[in-house]
Amino acid sequence: MSRYNEMWRSLGLNMEAHDQLLQALPPTYHDVYLTQPGRPAGMEYFDFVINEIHGLRIQELQEHKAAGGKVIGAFCVFVPEEIVRAAGGICIGLCSGIDLGGAEAEKVLPRNICPLIKSFMGFKLAKICPYFESCDLVVGETTCDGKKKAFEILNDYIPVHVMETPHMKKERDRELWLDEVKEFAGLVEQTTGSAITPETLARSIREVNGKRRALLRLAELRKNNPAPISGKDSLLIEQIAMYDDVERFTAKVNELCDELEQKVRDEAGIFPAGTKRVIVTGTPMAIPNWKVPHIIETSGAVIVAEELCTGLRYFENLVPEEADNLESQIRNVAARYMGINCAVFTPNTARMDRLVELVKEYRADGVIHCALSFCDPYAVEANRVEQVLKKESIPLLKIETGYDREDAGQLKTRIEAFIEMLE
Amino acid sequence: MSRYNEMWRSLGLNMEAHDQLLQALPPTYHDVYLTQPGRPAGMEYFDFVINEIHGLRIQELQEHKAAGGKVIGAFCVFVPEEIVRAAGGICIGLCSGIDLGGAEAEKVLPRNICPLIKSFMGFKLAKICPYFESCDLVVGETTCDGKKKAFEILNDYIPVHVMETPHMKKERDRELWLDEVKEFAGLVEQTTGSAITPETLARSIREVNGKRRALLRLAELRKNNPAPISGKDSLLIEQIAMYDDVERFTAKVNELCDELEQKVRDEAGIFPAGTKRVIVTGTPMAIPNWKVPHIIETSGAVIVAEELCTGLRYFENLVPEEADNLESQIRNVAARYMGINCAVFTPNTARMDRLVELVKEYRADGVIHCALSFCDPYAVEANRVEQVLKKESIPLLKIETGYDREDAGQLKTRIEAFIEMLE
Repeated sequence: MSRYNEMWRSLGLNMEAHDQLLQALPPTYHDVYLTQPGRPAGMEYFDFVINEIHGLRIQELQEHKAAGGKVIGAFCVFVPEEIVRAAGGICIGLCSGIDLGGAEAEKVLPRNICPLIKSFMGFKLAKICPYFESCDLVVGETTCDGKKKAFEILNDYIPVHVMETPHMKKERDRELWLDEVKEFAGLVEQTTGSAITPETLARSIREVNGKRRALLRLAELRKNNPAPISGKDSLLIEQIAMYDDVERFTAKVNELCDELEQKVRDEAGIFPAGTKRVIVTGTPMAIPNWKVPHIIETSGAVIVAEELCTGLRYFENLVPEEADNLESQIRNVAARYMGINCAVFTPNTARMDRLVELVKEYRADGVIHCALSFCDPYAVEANRVEQVLKKESIPLLKIETGYDREDAGQLKTRIEAFIEMLE
Repeated sequence: MSRYNEMWRSLGLNMEAHDQLLQALPPTYHDVYLTQPGRPAGMEYFDFVINEIHGLRIQELQEHKAAGGKVIGAFCVFVPEEIVRAAGGICIGLCSGIDLGGAEAEKVLPRNICPLIKSFMGFKLAKICPYFESCDLVVGETTCDGKKKAFEILNDYIPVHVMETPHMKKERDRELWLDEVKEFAGLVEQTTGSAITPETLARSIREVNGKRRALLRLAELRKNNPAPISGKDSLLIEQIAMYDDVERFTAKVNELCDELEQKVRDEAGIFPAGTKRVIVTGTPMAIPNWKVPHIIETSGAVIVAEELCTGLRYFENLVPEEADNLESQIRNVAARYMGINCAVFTPNTARMDRLVELVKEYRADGVIHCALSFCDPYAVEANRVEQVLKKESIPLLKIETGYDREDAGQLKTRIEAFIEMLE
């Protein structure tokens, strides 16, 4: 019996279903993560965080709440964490990467829908996610049809505020988004009961930038050949970035980077020299959706970058830190998020340009485009990626897959064949 | 050999594939339409229009073009026809309701995508649609992810201008949309080479309103019990509304309504007294997608209204006709389109309210919600419809289906059972 049982019960979790989840995670984690040879010692912290994913971190959130703090959950990298922190709140990523509660979800959703959406709905309806149950407010957005419409349903079960991410990046879209961020700031102040001041926002911008800088430092190290860390471990860190304590996480990533710098000096790669280097791009991979990265890195390649929301899109752009008044600060925050190369935007040419740059910067041999099943924005945009990469003679493999294991064998065959033919 | 062969060849159509399409249509049309007993005499015109769908109407467009006119194609009821006409252009609905060219479409699109999107892409890539080939400009919009992203691809083959339909109906969304309409007006002027003046726009608003009034008159007549016209015939008229000559069409619908008024006075229903009355709601049904309406009306019910884009959403709201300056006129036009209850909007509560009203106004016994396969906006929003109708004790059947015939038997069984249990 877990020492957190009482806490989980008090959150109203369905204990039986939650136990199933807790039992499913460790063997998967063991197979995917702990069997990797030569992992950096600094991964120990992240292993610990995963081990305590529904334990210690939830306890911290509860302590924060007991002290009068608020917890705000989000499903997307567009929700500005700076704003939440500036009002004393904690911002938690809620995306779900496992099919649990699917039967519950299908009572309110169509069967043929993106597994991420089915997952978060299932988590809420079946009451198996302590993060959800810790939230004072959930923030959605309009980045895709499925989520946009599913939030209307989710709002029956927990209060959801939806931020409108526009479809384009014209001046009028930027203005609309700025207004959305301002409205959100007001709502956050109301929820937390704390005013956002130029001082608290400046600090929070610095803190969140600090997290991004640490992740960027990690990303930079992966440009080395041989790469000092696996793509799976890097993805894990990027996933944990979305719910761990910001300052502790930042310190731990920087510690890891110190270690990796030594490895780079020693030319100690995580895989043998000559291992093929690939970039993964497409839809977000939420914990514990490590399926494709695991297949890639057990098929003779190393992933050197994730052009994903659980990857570079989350930390690539910083918010300028010079502004000293709220209006300018909030403008800077809003502008930073409009720099995300999300497929909600039409056209999303900046993503294509960035992919080509990344292939050069990270010395990648090829790109694997991975879209979740039924994800129209990325599955259709894959054609644009294909067009651009073809022009640049960069090899591309396109995959569509869900959270089930049924296609694992077929995926392995395709991925092996792709890696085999990389030069 | 058709007398239009030369015209089709000059448009660059794939003659073989186009012949297949022309051969497929008449038997379907015969079975679905011409076998209906007691059809109004006024349907003869619409039968003629369908018979000439790729013939006379295309010839008219070519004559318009030969005289220096322009043709602008659209995929959505958000594209303001008033603006196109005010600059002397002809606005043509391009949505496609049949799976032809699917193999071509799947070269650039994912397999699991809405059949309407696959259809229009297939029509363009396989060169089987003379409307497409007559267009000087195609106008897309951002009403759903699939179309939004597919327009980026379509733009490789024909110039596509995309209008940004916002996700919400807040004041800032209305302002954004107004700017989109203004930008569109400028583009239309540039394309046609003709200025939009207060006079031409006033006339065009009146003409398009005239079409809407005729369709509203037809809709009003269907409130009578027994209904004087079938739902299938009404849908056909609503489909034809999107590409036929506006003034001729308006006159013909009004002539038909004169005839139907007499039928109402005579209490002559198109189906026997006591036939169950249903409202169809959901995704648009483009020509020749008559599958579900045909099943419904051969299973003991009459459709009395379509809460569809090929239905009430297309003609419910009029543009005010009083304004005499461009700024006010364009504001009125933009505002009219923001009144459409499209699932792009979150929340889309006005649609739910309207559905309940419609059931009362049209004395319907039940509602059939019909979403195209993989259509997230409507398939997910179906849950909201279900919730509202349940509260009002209005029976609902939810269907998801594509353009193939494979599920026709299963659909018939479900629809018959639903109609059977209506009281």
